[in-house]
Amino acid sequence: MHYKKIVGVIGANSAGDDILKQAESVGRLIGENNFSLVTGGKTGVMEAASRGAKQAGALTIGILPDEEKSEANPFVDIAVPTGFGIGRNIIIARMADVLIAVGGQYGTLSEIAFGLQMKKPVISLNSWEIKGVIMAESPEEAVTIAAGFLC
Amino acid sequence: MHYKKIVGVIGANSAGDDILKQAESVGRLIGENNFSLVTGGKTGVMEAASRGAKQAGALTIGILPDEEKSEANPFVDIAVPTGFGIGRNIIIARMADVLIAVGGQYGTLSEIAFGLQMKKPVISLNSWEIKGVIMAESPEEAVTIAAGFLC
Amino acid sequence: MHYKKIVGVIGANSAGDDILKQAESVGRLIGENNFSLVTGGKTGVMEAASRGAKQAGALTIGILPDEEKSEANPFVDIAVPTGFGIGRNIIIARMADVLIAVGGQYGTLSEIAFGLQMKKPVISLNSWEIKGVIMAESPEEAVTIAAGFLC
Amino acid sequence: MHYKKIVGVIGANSAGDDILKQAESVGRLIGENNFSLVTGGKTGVMEAASRGAKQAGALTIGILPDEEKSEANPFVDIAVPTGFGIGRNIIIARMADVLIAVGGQYGTLSEIAFGLQMKKPVISLNSWEIKGVIMAESPEEAVTIAAGFLC
Repeated sequence: MHYKKIVGVIGANSAGDDILKQAESVGRLIGENNFSLVTGGKTGVMEAASRGAKQAGALTIGILPDEEKSEANPFVDIAVPTGFGIGRNIIIARMADVLIAVGGQYGTLSEIAFGLQMKKPVISLNSWEIKGVIMAESPEEAVTIAAGFLC
Repeated sequence: MHYKKIVGVIGANSAGDDILKQAESVGRLIGENNFSLVTGGKTGVMEAASRGAKQAGALTIGILPDEEKSEANPFVDIAVPTGFGIGRNIIIARMADVLIAVGGQYGTLSEIAFGLQMKKPVISLNSWEIKGVIMAESPEEAVTIAAGFLC
Repeated sequence: MHYKKIVGVIGANSAGDDILKQAESVGRLIGENNFSLVTGGKTGVMEAASRGAKQAGALTIGILPDEEKSEANPFVDIAVPTGFGIGRNIIIARMADVLIAVGGQYGTLSEIAFGLQMKKPVISLNSWEIKGVIMAESPEEAVTIAAGFLC
Repeated sequence: MHYKKIVGVIGANSAGDDILKQAESVGRLIGENNFSLVTGGKTGVMEAASRGAKQAGALTIGILPDEEKSEANPFVDIAVPTGFGIGRNIIIARMADVLIAVGGQYGTLSEIAFGLQMKKPVISLNSWEIKGVIMAESPEEAVTIAAGFLC
């Protein structure tokens, strides 16, 4: 067995209802497309995307800043407790085959930057508009673009 | 779904036939006991344990020193490419609920030390005999001891 | 003795002559203002800034991606060999009291993002124009702004 | 200017008076031999060695587990705030040209193991007796052995 393609969803640990709803839709569409999900494993956008992905039966991976697996949100199947704080952001970018940013602030920007530095596709949904990022208007469009890179 | 208990198998990236055979048996028994496996994802003991675990249907996780998932051995389901070199050793210890060392040199000793520092059970099979480590005589004994901590 | 305030200079490992000249001036002005310098310790902007800082007698620190101190450029006094690859970027941001970006691409953007996430002043000289970054027109202006935060 | 040779002193963040006195002597002798010191930058053996080294005028470097430089003990000149928790242990081993362990438990053992894996001389003063480690009977003997590797 080889692992499935992995989509990374990056975003803040707290966000408004609109952003969280979009993150959950992105997660669900990732599962419906038969991809796995990697996030930072915490609250906010990370939890919403993981919840959506679980609804669609996807495997969810969380690369935690914390030292303990128990710090993951309840929708994470495989919790990787790094203990490296936000130094773990780079591992999310390394593990994803494509990244979708949903909202987010500077932590999200660091992950976008790492993804672009690794020459991975980075899709922005109500997130940073940076040279090299692909802007999407909806969860459907974001995941369709991502799937185009993975199939 | 909550993740299964995870056994970490640690050891060198090259080893003699006897050690490799023991590592494969340990991996297979981990799978037969319905645990998941985490290793460093490379060759030698890590590959042998992963091959054994896959034979028994277990999920195998590899915490790689490398920057790319493709550097994992072919028996790793979930490859976590840290890019941290042997700095990734600590993540293996953090992720495992119990550790089994099979043979190994100084890299293995660093993981044993981290495991003991985290107050996790560490079982030694033809590996380091350190204060706090539980010595086992066979793969069967090692996994039986591990299972005793996890059930 | 308490350490001096530390200015971080971030930028690419290769750059055009104009950018390198600016980086060297920034480094020299950092030394003339009696600050210490931290960089990523490699070539390009990192080396130019370190060379300038040494000309002005400053202590220069390099947080290396590599495993060996010998991989630092020759103008680094204190080489910190992390072995974490570009995962070391975050340590540069943590160590600096203020950051000056000179030119640079996505690696530089990741360090800018970490600096802003840590609520540190980030000054951009021919580098990324991101919400929260302070734009400077010259090395003199960049270091004057930095000094304003440190004195 | 090229940096001086660096001796790493490793040990626990709390220890008895005898061990602390030995660590302070080791630090002082490191300074008197014109080496620099690297430690983990915290309390206990790390602080005692740094205090001794400062008394002898040495440069002291602390590789901190914490996110902030202010978490270093007051005898650290150059604080490197990694934010990596005990994942920073490996950086101490990488930065030192030779390691002296003074007392210590499992955290110290992980650093000894990394040092030996990197083929660096590791000297033990009332610390772990592991294959490959050189046992010393006193601070004077420990630093004399260390100096023999560095001169």
